[in-house]
Amino acid sequence: MAKVTEEIVKQSAEERLAKYLRTVAHLGHVEITVTNFEASLDFFTDIMGLVVTEIEGDRAYLRAWQDFDHHTLILQASNVSQVKHMAWRVSSDESLKLFEKQLKDMNIDFTWVDGGTKKAIGDAIQFKSPSGLPIELYWEKEKFLTEDLNLISKLPSHPSKFRMHGVSPRRFDHVNLLVDDVKKEQEWWTNLLGIHHRYYIKNQEDVRLGSWLSRTNIAHEVALMRNSNQNGSKFHHLAYYLDSPDELIRAANIMAENEIQIEWGPGKHGTSGAQFIYVFEPSGHRVEIWTGGFLIFSPDWEAIEWESSVGKLGLEMWGSTPPESYFTYGTKIGE
Amino acid sequence: MAKVTEEIVKQSAEERLAKYLRTVAHLGHVEITVTNFEASLDFFTDIMGLVVTEIEGDRAYLRAWQDFDHHTLILQASNVSQVKHMAWRVSSDESLKLFEKQLKDMNIDFTWVDGGTKKAIGDAIQFKSPSGLPIELYWEKEKFLTEDLNLISKLPSHPSKFRMHGVSPRRFDHVNLLVDDVKKEQEWWTNLLGIHHRYYIKNQEDVRLGSWLSRTNIAHEVALMRNSNQNGSKFHHLAYYLDSPDELIRAANIMAENEIQIEWGPGKHGTSGAQFIYVFEPSGHRVEIWTGGFLIFSPDWEAIEWESSVGKLGLEMWGSTPPESYFTYGTKIGE
Amino acid sequence: MAKVTEEIVKQSAEERLAKYLRTVAHLGHVEITVTNFEASLDFFTDIMGLVVTEIEGDRAYLRAWQDFDHHTLILQASNVSQVKHMAWRVSSDESLKLFEKQLKDMNIDFTWVDGGTKKAIGDAIQFKSPSGLPIELYWEKEKFLTEDLNLISKLPSHPSKFRMHGVSPRRFDHVNLLVDDVKKEQEWWTNLLGIHHRYYIKNQEDVRLGSWLSRTNIAHEVALMRNSNQNGSKFHHLAYYLDSPDELIRAANIMAENEIQIEWGPGKHGTSGAQFIYVFEPSGHRVEIWTGGFLIFSPDWEAIEWESSVGKLGLEMWGSTPPESYFTYGTKIGE
Amino acid sequence: MAKVTEEIVKQSAEERLAKYLRTVAHLGHVEITVTNFEASLDFFTDIMGLVVTEIEGDRAYLRAWQDFDHHTLILQASNVSQVKHMAWRVSSDESLKLFEKQLKDMNIDFTWVDGGTKKAIGDAIQFKSPSGLPIELYWEKEKFLTEDLNLISKLPSHPSKFRMHGVSPRRFDHVNLLVDDVKKEQEWWTNLLGIHHRYYIKNQEDVRLGSWLSRTNIAHEVALMRNSNQNGSKFHHLAYYLDSPDELIRAANIMAENEIQIEWGPGKHGTSGAQFIYVFEPSGHRVEIWTGGFLIFSPDWEAIEWESSVGKLGLEMWGSTPPESYFTYGTKIGE
Repeated sequence: MAKVTEEIVKQSAEERLAKYLRTVAHLGHVEITVTNFEASLDFFTDIMGLVVTEIEGDRAYLRAWQDFDHHTLILQASNVSQVKHMAWRVSSDESLKLFEKQLKDMNIDFTWVDGGTKKAIGDAIQFKSPSGLPIELYWEKEKFLTEDLNLISKLPSHPSKFRMHGVSPRRFDHVNLLVDDVKKEQEWWTNLLGIHHRYYIKNQEDVRLGSWLSRTNIAHEVALMRNSNQNGSKFHHLAYYLDSPDELIRAANIMAENEIQIEWGPGKHGTSGAQFIYVFEPSGHRVEIWTGGFLIFSPDWEAIEWESSVGKLGLEMWGSTPPESYFTYGTKIGE
Repeated sequence: MAKVTEEIVKQSAEERLAKYLRTVAHLGHVEITVTNFEASLDFFTDIMGLVVTEIEGDRAYLRAWQDFDHHTLILQASNVSQVKHMAWRVSSDESLKLFEKQLKDMNIDFTWVDGGTKKAIGDAIQFKSPSGLPIELYWEKEKFLTEDLNLISKLPSHPSKFRMHGVSPRRFDHVNLLVDDVKKEQEWWTNLLGIHHRYYIKNQEDVRLGSWLSRTNIAHEVALMRNSNQNGSKFHHLAYYLDSPDELIRAANIMAENEIQIEWGPGKHGTSGAQFIYVFEPSGHRVEIWTGGFLIFSPDWEAIEWESSVGKLGLEMWGSTPPESYFTYGTKIGE
Repeated sequence: MAKVTEEIVKQSAEERLAKYLRTVAHLGHVEITVTNFEASLDFFTDIMGLVVTEIEGDRAYLRAWQDFDHHTLILQASNVSQVKHMAWRVSSDESLKLFEKQLKDMNIDFTWVDGGTKKAIGDAIQFKSPSGLPIELYWEKEKFLTEDLNLISKLPSHPSKFRMHGVSPRRFDHVNLLVDDVKKEQEWWTNLLGIHHRYYIKNQEDVRLGSWLSRTNIAHEVALMRNSNQNGSKFHHLAYYLDSPDELIRAANIMAENEIQIEWGPGKHGTSGAQFIYVFEPSGHRVEIWTGGFLIFSPDWEAIEWESSVGKLGLEMWGSTPPESYFTYGTKIGE
Repeated sequence: MAKVTEEIVKQSAEERLAKYLRTVAHLGHVEITVTNFEASLDFFTDIMGLVVTEIEGDRAYLRAWQDFDHHTLILQASNVSQVKHMAWRVSSDESLKLFEKQLKDMNIDFTWVDGGTKKAIGDAIQFKSPSGLPIELYWEKEKFLTEDLNLISKLPSHPSKFRMHGVSPRRFDHVNLLVDDVKKEQEWWTNLLGIHHRYYIKNQEDVRLGSWLSRTNIAHEVALMRNSNQNGSKFHHLAYYLDSPDELIRAANIMAENEIQIEWGPGKHGTSGAQFIYVFEPSGHRVEIWTGGFLIFSPDWEAIEWESSVGKLGLEMWGSTPPESYFTYGTKIGE
């Protein structure tokens, strides 16, 4: 603690305040392109049970029934399936300017996108991580509002009615990416974006196999896993959250009945304590449906180490073995 | 937004930084006295399935199996059943000094308790809310550590093994208090402690019936409800969190088989979306066991209003009616 | 045992064989009329998630996704909401003739309905219980078969796909009726139809308040409860079965979001151990959704007595109180 | 149907009656020897949460909390882990004599065990199936009765209190055996014991890989699976029943935390629709914990065929692959 305090006193109040303001608040949405737009849209609405906010041109804006924002997932028709942006809301209306300054100081290229250019989003700033992962930061985003009587709930806490069709998760949860150097990438995210390091797995050679990070109290909002093939970054999956293990079993039944391949699961991550299944949507993106696990409240949390002897339990504590594809397959990272 | 910004620019960076640092991080534990120590200890360990960290003299220190800290509940033998402290961890090692200054500025009496005086806790500052609710703030608290081979898990994420006995909640969740003036009390908590206002219920006469607040992303860490008898503050309940509705049903079965009175539930709060049962432990304190519900990620969340026409659904959305005792009965507030 | 054996030896092999053959096998379906056909059909398909086998004229034939037969519920448009028949499959192709003989011996009026007269049903015999409850017995009934690709499952154990919409029970379960004299009615059902008496509740005056009966291993297929108003027989409810308490909670959420009144529950019957909610469908029939509870395998089961001191726990073991309507309200018994 | 009727009319009433009486009623218990008595007893009581009825000499008598009988599992200390008997209750007090006659007619060796020789069991008859599987039939068995105040429930439907420790299944469910010729063995069980054939799996060469049978309405009480090594009969597993998928997840967590190896699962049998995990108890017997699935009510049920193209889904419908051990490993069959 002493060392940290020492560093802090050397900073001016302005510098320290800027550091507080220059953080993300939470993961907002993910924007992906899909080679089979119709089938993917059908998967996310009929099978997954997400709600369509709107479809405009080649894009569909989707959310889970209790996601409060306009969208948490954007599907865009394309001839390639890739992730275009992982978009984070920042912590205050001053944050974007502070991020701009910081990016300049770090010599990182960035692009401003004016408010209104992207549907439901205010001014945004876009840039890439060292491994080429596309990040977007914004402060303003419209809430989900509807005049559709079939969607309006009498409960003020429900931006739309509980959806009684398909998997019907409660909310968007996290994204996961394969990169070649997990440790380097994790440190960059934590330092630049203020996303706390929550837990990690190492192998016997002390190589970081995965790191999980969050700004909020959930176990992670973004995960970085080592690409076993060491052939660059890939989009591993996006995840939505269910309320119970029982709902996860129901989700697995729905997949099995509807020709959606379950890659792995039901299983339980020892790291987070969350139960999961992984499936592939029709355009090739991996989707995780998960539930449970722990929350992290401590303001000085130290990342939990899962060293090699327990790393397998960190991945799956009941004893199943992840398929080879889990460590190598991902969809593309958008240019 | 403009007005807020204007206010902000008038503040110095020091002032703004102090405001960031002078907040709580999360609810840490609750300290209650019990008239029937043996029976209450038996209830919390055998029926509820909490884990004893240690028992020393007239005090027992307890926690749920995944609470990372030394304790989240203190039971103290006494001739009265009351709440002694609701203890919050602050957001940084600088916070306590800043709170001291603020309390002085506000002319609020407080007491310093030196680190080590209270088991597992560093320096703490104690004071009361306008309604007399006893608050304790601390920065340092020992983690739970054990050498008991029956408790040690091979999973680094488990401070102790999943407990396979009794209700066995995952973690401590929140406290709830009856006060005469909810609105006034809520504003004080939000202003002084930085605990965000999440949702509230009003009656037809525009009287605030309840307010729910949290600093973290969970729906609430402290609730303030109107005492229907308007005869002063009372301790309404403390709550532990379960992983699923199914576990809640199991908890209700356990209560029913073991002569523990269920006051209300299973029911579902429309406000939070959490399922609940309320029971009375042997010394008269109300205990809530709950599960599910939503998390709040937005940094500029506006408290959801449940006006009188939907207030009943806010309390219980499936249609059951709370018993009269729910609005009037509580245990004492400690001096 | 001795006394039973003595009686048995006095019977001829023919008589004993006839008694084995002259029993029901299981409850097959219930046929109700509804004053609001469109709204009721919408409730049973959209909210309850039953599958339509066919709609013909003023009748709809419905089943749960894993009901193997053509239908387990018939809705018929009418100007009155009443139960027309509770239909039971008999235990063998010889049973109907043996029942005819027995009904004649007992001077009970009956009617033959030729096979093909009623959709999907072979020859049937119809008559009334002493309290006027309309019973139908049949041997032949078509299985559910479909050419609808949206319904066909690749799993041979699924007569149609798991339905991922609405409450979606697994199967039809039981019916319940209010009568003035429970004991008399129960004895008649057991003696004539071979439906075993499983458990019953008595009040302090030794009056039978309810009896639950089944031919199969499930806790009950038909329940008879005392009409508190003593004004004749009524149809209390029909019930469908869910797989878990968690699915029941989901069902309660669906009802709450869709303006379907939950009369009572979630609660848990101490008698069967099954969790329940009761709702009213748009034409006024009460519908129970339930899950769990015990199976009865013993061939010489003696009905469990719930005497007055525990009768309330028999009805609801967690402690909630049934509404007054539960003991008095029912829809009509068909002529 | 015509052919069956023709056969029936040729039989005398006495013959037909005998056939009705000469059937089992349900699977009663399984008796196994264990090489590590203390560890196995600890597993079944502490981890599985079964209740000890009594321990006498080298035997322990166990049951699930809602098993109504004195025991459903007998553990006996031994230097080999094998199954000694699978014990079935017969359908009436006349059955045993009728079985004796039938066994004589079929030239099958059998042994009478006088009532009282075996704890809590009346007269019993013991013999072996063609594959050498040890079968015991009995009519009389004591109910579970206790004077232990910690076990007595106020609910008359609970022979002992819901056990709030360990996995705590509701009831005993079934046994499973590896044999070399499934078809032959199945036909023998069905013909002699009246245990209905419910579903089966075939491979591409039309070889029967597994058959599942029950006398009651549950999906199966005994399963016969092909030993891939074709080296004789083995005891595959015994199974206890849980109330929900969520409880199964809890069971998997308990196993993972307590060094009990999960061989396979959580998974879902497409055949029965039941969710499962398989574990090994400390003496080497495989134990299944399962929940859900369908009941079979039809009196003329035709066994469902799972031909080779869907056989894998019959075993596990979510897509996981059974381990090799699942088709070859079992404990011994008792002499």
